[in-house]
Amino acid sequence: MNTDTVLAIAQQSREASRLLSLTSESLRNSALIQMAQALEAIQSQVFAVNAQEVEKARQTGQTAAMVKRLTLDEKVFQYMLSRLRKVAQAPDPLNRVLEGHANPNGLQVFKKSVPIGVVGMIYESRPNVTSDAVGVCIKSGNAIILRGGSEALETNVLLADAMINGALDAGLPAHAIQIIRTPGHESVGELLTMNEYVDVLIPRGGKGLIKRIAEGTRIPVIKHYDGICHLYIADDADLEQAVALAVNSKCQSVEVCNALETLLVDQNGAEKILPLLQAAFAAQGIALRGCEHTGKILAGIDLATEEDWRSEYLAPILSIKIVSGLEAAMAHINYYGSGHTDGIVTQSLMRAQQFEQQIDSASVLINASTRLSGGGDYGLGSVVGISTDKLHARGPVGPEQLTTYKWVVYGEGHLRA
Amino acid sequence: MNTDTVLAIAQQSREASRLLSLTSESLRNSALIQMAQALEAIQSQVFAVNAQEVEKARQTGQTAAMVKRLTLDEKVFQYMLSRLRKVAQAPDPLNRVLEGHANPNGLQVFKKSVPIGVVGMIYESRPNVTSDAVGVCIKSGNAIILRGGSEALETNVLLADAMINGALDAGLPAHAIQIIRTPGHESVGELLTMNEYVDVLIPRGGKGLIKRIAEGTRIPVIKHYDGICHLYIADDADLEQAVALAVNSKCQSVEVCNALETLLVDQNGAEKILPLLQAAFAAQGIALRGCEHTGKILAGIDLATEEDWRSEYLAPILSIKIVSGLEAAMAHINYYGSGHTDGIVTQSLMRAQQFEQQIDSASVLINASTRLSGGGDYGLGSVVGISTDKLHARGPVGPEQLTTYKWVVYGEGHLRA
Repeated sequence: MNTDTVLAIAQQSREASRLLSLTSESLRNSALIQMAQALEAIQSQVFAVNAQEVEKARQTGQTAAMVKRLTLDEKVFQYMLSRLRKVAQAPDPLNRVLEGHANPNGLQVFKKSVPIGVVGMIYESRPNVTSDAVGVCIKSGNAIILRGGSEALETNVLLADAMINGALDAGLPAHAIQIIRTPGHESVGELLTMNEYVDVLIPRGGKGLIKRIAEGTRIPVIKHYDGICHLYIADDADLEQAVALAVNSKCQSVEVCNALETLLVDQNGAEKILPLLQAAFAAQGIALRGCEHTGKILAGIDLATEEDWRSEYLAPILSIKIVSGLEAAMAHINYYGSGHTDGIVTQSLMRAQQFEQQIDSASVLINASTRLSGGGDYGLGSVVGISTDKLHARGPVGPEQLTTYKWVVYGEGHLRA
Repeated sequence: MNTDTVLAIAQQSREASRLLSLTSESLRNSALIQMAQALEAIQSQVFAVNAQEVEKARQTGQTAAMVKRLTLDEKVFQYMLSRLRKVAQAPDPLNRVLEGHANPNGLQVFKKSVPIGVVGMIYESRPNVTSDAVGVCIKSGNAIILRGGSEALETNVLLADAMINGALDAGLPAHAIQIIRTPGHESVGELLTMNEYVDVLIPRGGKGLIKRIAEGTRIPVIKHYDGICHLYIADDADLEQAVALAVNSKCQSVEVCNALETLLVDQNGAEKILPLLQAAFAAQGIALRGCEHTGKILAGIDLATEEDWRSEYLAPILSIKIVSGLEAAMAHINYYGSGHTDGIVTQSLMRAQQFEQQIDSASVLINASTRLSGGGDYGLGSVVGISTDKLHARGPVGPEQLTTYKWVVYGEGHLRA
């Protein structure tokens, strides 16, 4: 590992970011389209290289989940292309006048959205993050430095190089997109020290990775911690809708941050709905762990421990707790939840509004699957992840979340009295 | 120092923040008015206590600048009251729908502004920060924990207690405003570990304090580093206006973060304007340090070193550099500046727009004094400081900057396909 390399990359990114901030919306959008075309042109090559890395991961005894995340199939690849094209069509997050006024003495003041500058993206396994992150960064006029996992290095380099060429062909400044090509932890360590050139780091992956990054750098970090997501079924919920929402929230994909982890069931009606839920989850192969009260209704169910309420399983396991009402449900969520995504099933407007106001989470859903929290349904085009921070970006991180603003003031010789 | 005390304060603030987030705009505004009245009622007591602390600071050999910052006079006190009343009149930053839409399939999505939660304010000397910070936090529905400097402890406690009583009388939840009453570093150290209860820390004071806080906590920090502010006088600037802007930017107050530190003069016309500037600054008692070229025009001037271009003097010293044009001026500012506040004096629309676009600073001013960057002229009502961060809050930190948002989604049983 050559220290100069990461330093040179960071310095080149800084210079590129200055030029990128001056690019037009149409240039950035046409670059995104060309990047998608460039990727499409190397599809079979990507599958071949990825298959080798997947095989290597298998042989070195990586977990099935990891191998799955690493695998680029036709469906994932098409989704990557569609996200690049979709973000190209999204509204320009730059040069928007966010607010503005003239003072009584004629001073004109406005706040304008601008790129953050240089984004460092540090991630594990999933090669689709490569194109998602590049898409969101270029859309928002930020230079990006990619650093994926070693297990996916060749796939990522292939993807990045195609996008770099597409971007250059379209006329974007050189070094707008860069990838650190050296494997190993040292280059990540170097990147963490580049606070003079890198404006924000976005780590995506396991909790360990995110913690290591956040605690090892003075560069601001947009964090993506866990999603301990809840759904509360009120006693006035439509039974069929409630079961469908619970099943979709948990089962549509179990390994993702907005999958359901704890189901809260109102004590009124619990005896009626719990057997329906048990049958539905059994059909999906989900193991249930219940509170004592749940155990009395559903014979033979495993008992949940304190640890369960704090768990992001990311697995076919669901904890169930019977609560005494809305207040108890909200107290449980605000205490045990991770502030990621939490929902209620109710037909009561008052309960919906109380839940909306009092749940302190990035996404609060009423009668909708927790799996709907994210970029697509929120109209963001594409996202680099879902932030669990409260500052700057909360929830899905799309192009707009990768902007900052500057205050612009026009006077005519205005002085301070 | 009792550890339980800071822990208890942090826990109480967390609970208060939950209740505060549900308060109406009118309740928060009437509380701000009552807080101002409560302060007004104890004015003479405040001056008496403050005078004792000022005397003590003098006797213990504190610097004149520190003693000045510590001193509460009639003017500062009236300004504190006016800021509380002004922020009460400012628009409500909460419960605003920042964006919203319905998806083609009928899912309703919107983004709503909400308080951050619990703000920890750690500051030095200036007792007016006590009321400014409380005003901005209560306006934005955040609970606040105050921790001022030991040298101003009694003044700060007196101010805080009056505001606490005013807030309680108005009907705000208990513990919305708290102050750590124990002197010494340990209580600050405890506060830094309260990441479970405190959402953001705002340090204000010397660079050392801010660095210590930022590096010593896992709580997000809104930083207030230095303002190395520039004014570039283009060759087409109106001479009289340029001199007036330079003098006001530097001299209106030299100890503040948006005071001018480096003046950039275009080489065309430098021989004409520099003598005018020299005379004007001499009349204000400002010592000039110039680049070599400046030294050739202004005989006897001290030469500036590399260190000068990196200096935030906060003192009656100004560095002057002659530059070859707009590009050179912008390159100097983006390289040596701190991204705080930078201005241009020009009559050219094209230059003004290039400067506006290419200067990467929180505040970019055209034909206006750098001293105008701040909360008042930007319409924020009141501020807790001026952030040098790019993420979350950039520039003046008013009520709006102390909000975050949540995504709220209303469905009718919507599932993810």
